[in-house]
Amino acid sequence: MKDSVEILCIGTEILLGNIVNTNSQTISRGLADIGMDLYHHTVVGDNPQRLKEALETAFSRNNIVITTGGLGPTYDDLTKETIANYFGLELEMYEPAREWIISFIERSHRTLTENSLKQAMMPQGCIVMENHNGTAPGAIIEGDGRIAIMLPGPPKEMAPMFRDQVIPYLEKRSGRVLRSHCIHFFGIGESALEYQLHEQMEQMTNPTLAPYAKEGEVMLRVTASATDEQQAEELMQPVIKQLYQQYKDYIYGMDVGDLQTAVVRMAAQKGLTLATAESCTGGYVAKRITDVAGSSVMFHCGIVSYANEVKERVLGVRHETLEQYGAVSEQTAQEMARGVRRVSGAEIGISVTGIAGPDGGTPEKPVGLVYIGVNSDWHSEVLKLNLARNFQNERENVRYLASSNALSLALKTILAKK
Amino acid sequence: MKDSVEILCIGTEILLGNIVNTNSQTISRGLADIGMDLYHHTVVGDNPQRLKEALETAFSRNNIVITTGGLGPTYDDLTKETIANYFGLELEMYEPAREWIISFIERSHRTLTENSLKQAMMPQGCIVMENHNGTAPGAIIEGDGRIAIMLPGPPKEMAPMFRDQVIPYLEKRSGRVLRSHCIHFFGIGESALEYQLHEQMEQMTNPTLAPYAKEGEVMLRVTASATDEQQAEELMQPVIKQLYQQYKDYIYGMDVGDLQTAVVRMAAQKGLTLATAESCTGGYVAKRITDVAGSSVMFHCGIVSYANEVKERVLGVRHETLEQYGAVSEQTAQEMARGVRRVSGAEIGISVTGIAGPDGGTPEKPVGLVYIGVNSDWHSEVLKLNLARNFQNERENVRYLASSNALSLALKTILAKK
Repeated sequence: MKDSVEILCIGTEILLGNIVNTNSQTISRGLADIGMDLYHHTVVGDNPQRLKEALETAFSRNNIVITTGGLGPTYDDLTKETIANYFGLELEMYEPAREWIISFIERSHRTLTENSLKQAMMPQGCIVMENHNGTAPGAIIEGDGRIAIMLPGPPKEMAPMFRDQVIPYLEKRSGRVLRSHCIHFFGIGESALEYQLHEQMEQMTNPTLAPYAKEGEVMLRVTASATDEQQAEELMQPVIKQLYQQYKDYIYGMDVGDLQTAVVRMAAQKGLTLATAESCTGGYVAKRITDVAGSSVMFHCGIVSYANEVKERVLGVRHETLEQYGAVSEQTAQEMARGVRRVSGAEIGISVTGIAGPDGGTPEKPVGLVYIGVNSDWHSEVLKLNLARNFQNERENVRYLASSNALSLALKTILAKK
Repeated sequence: MKDSVEILCIGTEILLGNIVNTNSQTISRGLADIGMDLYHHTVVGDNPQRLKEALETAFSRNNIVITTGGLGPTYDDLTKETIANYFGLELEMYEPAREWIISFIERSHRTLTENSLKQAMMPQGCIVMENHNGTAPGAIIEGDGRIAIMLPGPPKEMAPMFRDQVIPYLEKRSGRVLRSHCIHFFGIGESALEYQLHEQMEQMTNPTLAPYAKEGEVMLRVTASATDEQQAEELMQPVIKQLYQQYKDYIYGMDVGDLQTAVVRMAAQKGLTLATAESCTGGYVAKRITDVAGSSVMFHCGIVSYANEVKERVLGVRHETLEQYGAVSEQTAQEMARGVRRVSGAEIGISVTGIAGPDGGTPEKPVGLVYIGVNSDWHSEVLKLNLARNFQNERENVRYLASSNALSLALKTILAKK
């Protein structure tokens, strides 16, 4: 019978709605990537009886159960006990885990308590997974054609353990490796891309193409299944090459993570510096650029000129420009980009001015109207955009999309430099 | 028997990890607020057989099942059919729903298809819930002591229907209303607060107190159950008053949402303006302030002085200060706060300078060392903080906590103004 998985998350805090269950999503996506069948998610609280019943239900319909949570030191962390009991196994002290826990607690200057060592008690004969980001080890129990994979609850501990230890374990079962690349698009909608690639996507079996939408961006994942990594790469390369040819104006990078990382890397590579002058985004563009470690080599200065007076005084936007065209105008955007270049000495000046809402819109200048300006020796322009999408959180949406468009224009300008 | 609920979400996109299951969180939180017992979340794909089995499992352990998803127009939307069948009911055309759907589609300039009207087919005798944000109505079926509540999948349709129609329905069953207030703390850890209030929280039954941790902040929810809203308020007031007395240095507001909203509201109320000079946070403080609609009255200018040269040239930090003490120092923070006040003309200048990492740390100035400065006519000071927490995403963490501390210091300064 083909393997199928159930995800069983354990934690009263999920049932109380205190946290959103991102672990299920992380695991689901990872399983989809390697082509594992997954038909059920379940969540139960820290209650051994309900956990036991949920485990029985899960194994009645799937042969692999991945749990998260309940591996910690407190009295209500009972996942290992309950699952070991299901398999008829005892817990025993696992020396290496005991040592990691002691050294981890010492390194983080906390006090070792008896409870902490409970985390080193592991089911007999299980595969122990090291936790590189916390104290509780993970465990895999195999028995009777069933597999229980226990992961810690905190996402920052769970995700790396799942990626680095569970995925290879499951791949080994299947005898295949799956590798993928993410191609990042900006400026084309998911539905447009899906429409254009629909037929191709339907026909492809290996590699496969799957689009993922993120506010204002699309990520296209190319995934190949092969006997080894090299063969997987060889399967993917022709498809990637074709996509780059077909969509060169929209692709901003491969496996690059996000727009700001692409901007920082490309500017650093070309030895260019960039400065920002922001009105409606209020520092969002600067914040996103400086999210990227190493951005200090290419980003020296950002000005948030929320008030007109600051546009004039700090950036040197002319009083007449503001009077005649208003703060939200092509002319102001142009002068802001030029002004911040002058103030900062950067090679590229980027500006954003617009109406983020919810108030301040007029029939001529509605909420969502945004001008993005760029100024450099080799390329200068101003984009006029309407970013209103009638979303519930329109202000955040307009600001985010405006910052993305500013980053995209910055990248285009960096790439245009000979 | 006391009511207990199971949430059953239907959608293959959740199992593929394409979306995170926020609906379960929204519903869980709402049920916790009104004191309903919830022991299980389940997710299945758009598969009628597995949905049927999951429904049977859910009703074997709970008497109320709330579903999301599968109410739409496509062939794989089969929730109503499956659940009606479970209750032995037929679907029939519900005229008012048919009319809403037609008028909704006309208003949004789309084309009416036969499929769309499938959404107006409702189980016989059910309670129909109008959808004010989409086309698919919700439904409640009662029978044999069991209740199935069907909600649409898109969160912006689901959440208002749940809040405005399901919660009152469930409250009516219990004959009680639950009301709550959120008290926001900054500068005290969840465990410290929990430790101090532990006994009190254990003993309280009405109102109850529950702490929720958010990075660097704690929210304490006070919830009262009563026969009406006024009685609920009367039950909560003494507890709230006592908390304010006990924790006046840590509480930054009630029902205020977040630190930046508290800062903006309080500054606007006092007619004060504020300007920011940021180094390691790179615009994060300005971005958070301008997240708040209406911030333009109190925030006119922010300077991101990532490079020393900009600290000197734009903010007027003295070259000798940077030479002698370095960019990350009490003296530089002081001069940045003073400088941005001068440049902007604001009453309050806030500065942040520190080492966000991952690189740039030294034994004397490690990653996480941050100075926060404030300058005003009535209050000036510099805080020295170490914000490293050994997290995986340390850079983001240090930057976020630094911005929170800057907002907290700004609020303190605003409040200190006579």
